[in-house]
Amino acid sequence: MPPAEKPNAASRGRPTLARIAQLAGVSVPTVSKVVNGRADVGPETREHVERILREHGYRPLRKLGAPGAHVELVFHALEGVYDTEVINGVESVASEHGLALVVSQLGHQFTPDALWMERVLSRRPAGVISAFSGLDREQRMQLRDRGIAYVVVDPTEDPGPEFPTVAAHNWMGGLAAARHLLELGHRRVAAVTGPMWALPARARFDGYCAALERAGVPFDARLVGEDDFLPRGGLAQARRLLRLPDPPTAFVAGNDGQALGVCQAVHEAGLRVPQDVSVVGFDDLALAESHVPPLTTVHQPVRQMAATAAGIAVRLAAGKPVERMRVELPVRLVERASAAPPPSS
Amino acid sequence: MPPAEKPNAASRGRPTLARIAQLAGVSVPTVSKVVNGRADVGPETREHVERILREHGYRPLRKLGAPGAHVELVFHALEGVYDTEVINGVESVASEHGLALVVSQLGHQFTPDALWMERVLSRRPAGVISAFSGLDREQRMQLRDRGIAYVVVDPTEDPGPEFPTVAAHNWMGGLAAARHLLELGHRRVAAVTGPMWALPARARFDGYCAALERAGVPFDARLVGEDDFLPRGGLAQARRLLRLPDPPTAFVAGNDGQALGVCQAVHEAGLRVPQDVSVVGFDDLALAESHVPPLTTVHQPVRQMAATAAGIAVRLAAGKPVERMRVELPVRLVERASAAPPPSS
Repeated sequence: MPPAEKPNAASRGRPTLARIAQLAGVSVPTVSKVVNGRADVGPETREHVERILREHGYRPLRKLGAPGAHVELVFHALEGVYDTEVINGVESVASEHGLALVVSQLGHQFTPDALWMERVLSRRPAGVISAFSGLDREQRMQLRDRGIAYVVVDPTEDPGPEFPTVAAHNWMGGLAAARHLLELGHRRVAAVTGPMWALPARARFDGYCAALERAGVPFDARLVGEDDFLPRGGLAQARRLLRLPDPPTAFVAGNDGQALGVCQAVHEAGLRVPQDVSVVGFDDLALAESHVPPLTTVHQPVRQMAATAAGIAVRLAAGKPVERMRVELPVRLVERASAAPPPSS
Repeated sequence: MPPAEKPNAASRGRPTLARIAQLAGVSVPTVSKVVNGRADVGPETREHVERILREHGYRPLRKLGAPGAHVELVFHALEGVYDTEVINGVESVASEHGLALVVSQLGHQFTPDALWMERVLSRRPAGVISAFSGLDREQRMQLRDRGIAYVVVDPTEDPGPEFPTVAAHNWMGGLAAARHLLELGHRRVAAVTGPMWALPARARFDGYCAALERAGVPFDARLVGEDDFLPRGGLAQARRLLRLPDPPTAFVAGNDGQALGVCQAVHEAGLRVPQDVSVVGFDDLALAESHVPPLTTVHQPVRQMAATAAGIAVRLAAGKPVERMRVELPVRLVERASAAPPPSS
């Protein structure tokens, strides 16, 4: 029962803890411990009580703005401007609603561990927002069973129809980036992608492929390099691709971080951006504009995506309906100075 | 009475709320409201109760690791890698102690407003850590009176001897940056500084001046530009300085962000880094290494500074003594490729 379809579950026909305890054949304190995520309940009892909670649509009452009311924001890692943009977006909405923002990161894991989950449940947040990371199915159910909203920003995979997600038009962005280079006259356009298991990386890459096909340029798998969404990922892949017998004259990077690494590899090879090699990024974070040369890139509204996700979490926590469970915000190509026509050699 | 001198205040001779109420001539709920930062107490009553709390060394008991225990981390703004490094550092220590981390930002103000303060007090944190921002005197006293630890990372000004601070050796860093350029043979070395009212900016600038003096190079006020700690600040000042009749051959920037802006201005002027103009930054954040050319800069251990501050806050919150109220962590010059001898024109 997705929260979006049960707007009044918070206040209507809500079973009491005593009723749940009776149905489960356990004490009220035991039900309370399960609801609050305490560790001192055996796994079998926990699962049993969770099933009863789920079956009876239990949803703890929670006053927004009350002391202790907060949202949790979790990152797989905190590494840069993308992350501060997400925090800014969530914080602005949380603050507007008097909610504290608790930030945590998973030490480069994409799924939280049991300790993280236990702590989050014990803190009883109004909602949990994950950014470029995600809870596994069981963890999502644990939140749902406790009436804790769960929203994903920039999802790496689909969390299932009952959990809202907010993303950018990644496929359109990949298309726009590649098309820009093709329209400038490039024919050997390389793609440095993020990790392909993550939806945003895959969608951008598919957009790139679509642009090639529409321009009648054959796809060449040798011009693709997959790596981390970091400068070192772009550097490693571009170094390799620039050593090909017939190297690319242009690169579509998976994000701005990778684009910086690509520019570095171009420079190392004694070539210039954009005179010899063109580079288009993705993100348009602060560093894109102050780069030398200023980066042509696809702008995605990270802060707005995060604020939208926070707004959805707040609505769900207040028991209000959510109109759209899948939000994709538009991107746009920002032309600066890292892309130019290919050298006329 | 600084917490560092009252290690056992949390458990020994601690006056009860009832005793405070009796001494203040108010009800226990009123004292409780003041302690919890609730808004529904008149300002005179509040001040009166706060004075009694202060005089009697009231310190609320708080179990670390209990549900709701957390530290607050506040920024004047969340803008980039510096901020994520601070969050990483605080989060690692907070998480180790089972404390949640609540993050907020002040919308580019350097001192929190009354609403922020009210919310933080109502949440009853174990400690508050401010990064490149600070509470005013009254706000610091409000925390102290409630037994909430307050620690400043990268202080913009001195919060007074009873509040711990953790900074970098900013003066030594400014000295090292300028000395490196002077040793390369530069004689016209410009300084683009951060806002001089902020201690780190001023200390780095003073280090620059000391390096000039020790090298026997006269200080020239026309070679100094003060601006925001952002790329646009470095860009604006370097544009201006490069138009001087006798322009500088090298720049010491206040931080890496400004250094990026300086590089952009050099590029705009049709000059190259480092062949024509050398640039040294300060921070050594992730972007320094992936810049083209890789940035020579002064490394400051931002994550370690933040972790140290969090460790101090946790000790204070647990009623343990703090050995050093002023911590300055060492910096080091990292030579990459943005500084070279001056052109031999």
